[in-house]
Amino acid sequence: MKMKKFSKNPSKFYFHYPFPVAVVGVKVGDVVNFMSAAWHTQLSFDPPLYGVAISPKRFTSSLLEKAHEFSLNFLDFKDYRLAGTFGRLSGREVDKSRIPGGEWTIGNVLNVPILERAVAVYECKLVKFEPLGDHVLYVGQILGVHYDEDYFNTGVGRSTLLYMGNDLYSCAHSVNSVSFTKEDALRFLNESTLGRDEQ
Amino acid sequence: MKMKKFSKNPSKFYFHYPFPVAVVGVKVGDVVNFMSAAWHTQLSFDPPLYGVAISPKRFTSSLLEKAHEFSLNFLDFKDYRLAGTFGRLSGREVDKSRIPGGEWTIGNVLNVPILERAVAVYECKLVKFEPLGDHVLYVGQILGVHYDEDYFNTGVGRSTLLYMGNDLYSCAHSVNSVSFTKEDALRFLNESTLGRDEQ
Repeated sequence: MKMKKFSKNPSKFYFHYPFPVAVVGVKVGDVVNFMSAAWHTQLSFDPPLYGVAISPKRFTSSLLEKAHEFSLNFLDFKDYRLAGTFGRLSGREVDKSRIPGGEWTIGNVLNVPILERAVAVYECKLVKFEPLGDHVLYVGQILGVHYDEDYFNTGVGRSTLLYMGNDLYSCAHSVNSVSFTKEDALRFLNESTLGRDEQ
Repeated sequence: MKMKKFSKNPSKFYFHYPFPVAVVGVKVGDVVNFMSAAWHTQLSFDPPLYGVAISPKRFTSSLLEKAHEFSLNFLDFKDYRLAGTFGRLSGREVDKSRIPGGEWTIGNVLNVPILERAVAVYECKLVKFEPLGDHVLYVGQILGVHYDEDYFNTGVGRSTLLYMGNDLYSCAHSVNSVSFTKEDALRFLNESTLGRDEQ
């Protein structure tokens, strides 16, 4: 660790990025809003739970606490402008239901807006929310999943939009991916051990 | 959404991947263990909180509830074998403190193991844990951050290890990244509106 910097009080830290962009969609009456989030994670397989952390200052936060349901929309890299627009402008200033390229429909299970250009969308019912530090963790149970079969089935060329912090976007091309299974791990350990014994 | 598949009961869903690999390091007495996690997210800036969801069946889970502190280690793509080994083998079967390439030291602030090859490490004090579905969300307050200055400062060529699900690993090269700021978003909206008015 000699070459590394160390900080006890990092004000902002982007070392865990890139993260996929999850566009949070909410509908309350006639108000439809989308917000790009980079702080989110799957939480459980059974039931399928997904969490997203949002500042209570955000317009989306106030909508969520009325709607009690939301969509999570995942985009392809080519739609970074859409993500940036959803992320950097507030629904208090701009009607984000009418962004060019941001056409939407209503979910199959819940009354949530679904981005037509998304490569995958999760329809989530809010089951819990709790303040954690300066954000609120919204936990949704996934009641429906939309996905572009061609985009995901081949495993090649998939380029989900990723956020790197500081307004930077990127993607990982699955064509460059490598596989490493439990069997590979066992072989890796055995070969490494063998190598050390032989020396 | 006509071209999309829809499922109400997805048993496993990998549509939100890729996620960065976070290797969770824990030390309890002489036992040191590392586990690769893909379900994790930042939760708060102030205080700096980070959450990781781990199955209560995992060895790491039992260690965490004794140690009440952990490290989160982020790797470069080239170390996918290390991540796969930490992810697919259990500390109950293999001594993961002695994996080739997995050399570690002790944290600066906490008694947590720090991977020497990591490009960044967060030292976390456990401040909360709660069961959510079939996993437990461990919330840590980040008390120290190690990072490879060269790796992050240039913004070029950074290739943090990402997990795509199904034992597949990839990375996003920041050299291919694009910037899109709030000013870009405002320009994008204005130009789009102008374009429509002109037609």
